[in-house]
Amino acid sequence: AKDFKEKVFEICRMSKKIAEDDPRKVIHSLKVGLAISLVSLFYYYQPLYENFGLSAMWAVMTVVVVFEYTVGATLGKGLNRTLATLMAGTLGVGAHYLASLAGEKAEPILIGFFVFLQAAIVSFIRFFPKVKARYDYGFLVFILTFSLISVSGFRDDEVLEMAHKRLSTIFIGGSACVMISIFVCPVWAGEELHYSIAINLEKLSDFLEAFVCGYFTTLDEGGFVNFPCLEAYKSILNSKSSEESLANFAKWEPGHGKFKFSHPWDQYLKIGTITHQCAYRMEALKEYLNSNTQGSSEIRSMIEEVSLEMTMESSKALKELGLSIKTMTRSSSADIHIANSKASSKRLKSLLQSRLREETDLLSVISVGTVASLLIDITDFTEKLSDCV
Amino acid sequence: AKDFKEKVFEICRMSKKIAEDDPRKVIHSLKVGLAISLVSLFYYYQPLYENFGLSAMWAVMTVVVVFEYTVGATLGKGLNRTLATLMAGTLGVGAHYLASLAGEKAEPILIGFFVFLQAAIVSFIRFFPKVKARYDYGFLVFILTFSLISVSGFRDDEVLEMAHKRLSTIFIGGSACVMISIFVCPVWAGEELHYSIAINLEKLSDFLEAFVCGYFTTLDEGGFVNFPCLEAYKSILNSKSSEESLANFAKWEPGHGKFKFSHPWDQYLKIGTITHQCAYRMEALKEYLNSNTQGSSEIRSMIEEVSLEMTMESSKALKELGLSIKTMTRSSSADIHIANSKASSKRLKSLLQSRLREETDLLSVISVGTVASLLIDITDFTEKLSDCV
Repeated sequence: AKDFKEKVFEICRMSKKIAEDDPRKVIHSLKVGLAISLVSLFYYYQPLYENFGLSAMWAVMTVVVVFEYTVGATLGKGLNRTLATLMAGTLGVGAHYLASLAGEKAEPILIGFFVFLQAAIVSFIRFFPKVKARYDYGFLVFILTFSLISVSGFRDDEVLEMAHKRLSTIFIGGSACVMISIFVCPVWAGEELHYSIAINLEKLSDFLEAFVCGYFTTLDEGGFVNFPCLEAYKSILNSKSSEESLANFAKWEPGHGKFKFSHPWDQYLKIGTITHQCAYRMEALKEYLNSNTQGSSEIRSMIEEVSLEMTMESSKALKELGLSIKTMTRSSSADIHIANSKASSKRLKSLLQSRLREETDLLSVISVGTVASLLIDITDFTEKLSDCV
Repeated sequence: AKDFKEKVFEICRMSKKIAEDDPRKVIHSLKVGLAISLVSLFYYYQPLYENFGLSAMWAVMTVVVVFEYTVGATLGKGLNRTLATLMAGTLGVGAHYLASLAGEKAEPILIGFFVFLQAAIVSFIRFFPKVKARYDYGFLVFILTFSLISVSGFRDDEVLEMAHKRLSTIFIGGSACVMISIFVCPVWAGEELHYSIAINLEKLSDFLEAFVCGYFTTLDEGGFVNFPCLEAYKSILNSKSSEESLANFAKWEPGHGKFKFSHPWDQYLKIGTITHQCAYRMEALKEYLNSNTQGSSEIRSMIEEVSLEMTMESSKALKELGLSIKTMTRSSSADIHIANSKASSKRLKSLLQSRLREETDLLSVISVGTVASLLIDITDFTEKLSDCV
């Protein structure tokens, strides 16, 4: 009993955390409830029910299946579902008539053959990478509708009516979803992508700041630096697939707010790729934040000033770039920071060339040099980023 | 017209490529066709049809929606769908009776409220990360069935019968899918995961080999090394999400072949994580494969012998580990290679310490040293890997 109580407690805590982290998730849940209740009206409201009969349940089904968290995903699924139903319905009715021409005996065989054929072909098409990314759901619904209509046509001669009912109820359900997802507290996939890219740049910037601060302090034996913002970059390492799906959803969305219809979503993916490259370097850099690999403090202090300057400038540039993505204005201050950091990176290179030569603790030199060159790498990427923004 | 012809040509070429790369995809498509045709028999075969009537189409729907590429995914979806239908059906019937007690006027309001409430709550539960990973589809079907049954109950007094029919047709469709996916040329998610992890280790091993070969040859001005196996590691960088979903599917699968039911699938994810770490280092290493960053050939030649030895031994160890994952036998030769590479890594470290000190071209020293230390890093990871296998 105590175990059970604890579990319930745990679940409540988790719910609260999810709700607090992102209140839009609660709103989304309420929206789903609203959409389904709305569509159920078809069952309650007498004249409508008489029109559609049992088919009205397709509208409920459509709402449940199509309603997604972001507008883009909902729109994409809704359009996929409606268009696929339309096409498969037409073909299904066609197949039905074709088969009925063949006589009573051959009809079931022919229909069975058609169903097998289209299911196999469409399943194969779903493996095409481009189709998988944007039209997977549509092809699924195609198989579904075609099979339902041609198969039930064998029993029911009112095939055309069934196809028509299915299409109109799906259209009603789909448009209810789309309306509610667009007009009631919408969550735009494009906006999500936009801000997540901007926030990733800020995470990189925070990491750089925290890293240089940590790196140039001397640690006790066995100690290591640990700031929370040194962990934030990790979420970037694996963000590729979520960014890609957001970009795909965003392409379905109409223009909204500051985003026009043909907003260059692919550009975000490019920025994302460079962000990942930086994050990979950071993964390597983090190794040097413990006392065994840090290198001696004298050598570090030699490059401290220039490195600090370079990294701080890149960090500022990244922050500026993140900000200018957020506000969608191109500010020149990022360019200045980049120019500064490039100048410092040159000085750092020549410093490494001249001063460190006199040193004797070569392992330290190498470790410090590695850090420096990784930082220089990141500076280069920052420059590339700024070209994309 | 020419454009169109070219497009058709292109599509044919792509289909051929997909079919040749993985013939199982063709087989999968045929299996889907087979399953759907089989289930359509319900419509043709008179006595069965009389039993189920229109509900038989749920069986067709279930097949289309549940049939997935791997056995694990199909089983997971089938179980989710059946169990969710069972639970939601029970609750839906309960809600229907509860509402009907409230009198004719209050009934639609009460049912509308129930539907709203469960849709909102279940939609929220779907945001829980653990639920999302394994039971997302089940909760979707829960909303669907509950809404359908309680809502259509308002019209149809034979609510119990409808619930029962829906459950049995879904069960029939689901088990047809599961049977066909298990007994006709099965594609096991567990096996996919198993081999993809093993192949990733081989890719790492190939990269190391190609890298040292390329690094220690001298390049022309502006030239860079480019072997195909230097690109293979890139697919590892973003394989995390596909590995995680495969592991999730694998957990649904019964024992098969050399895998027992409670095979430690999470162990594969651990190996996968270390593999990604190595791949991140390789991403950094690749920068040093062009003539600008390669460092002078004299300095490279100093560490050539030891580095080659160390890297080759790690590469062999990785290959051995991949092989022992594949065959599921623990061979001791991997341990020997790892011991060798560790010895070389020690020698390399002291070499860096002693010999390079006399050099004057410090930028080269640093670049060479960075490469060496990244290679040493990878050697360490290889050791960690071997503990996991």
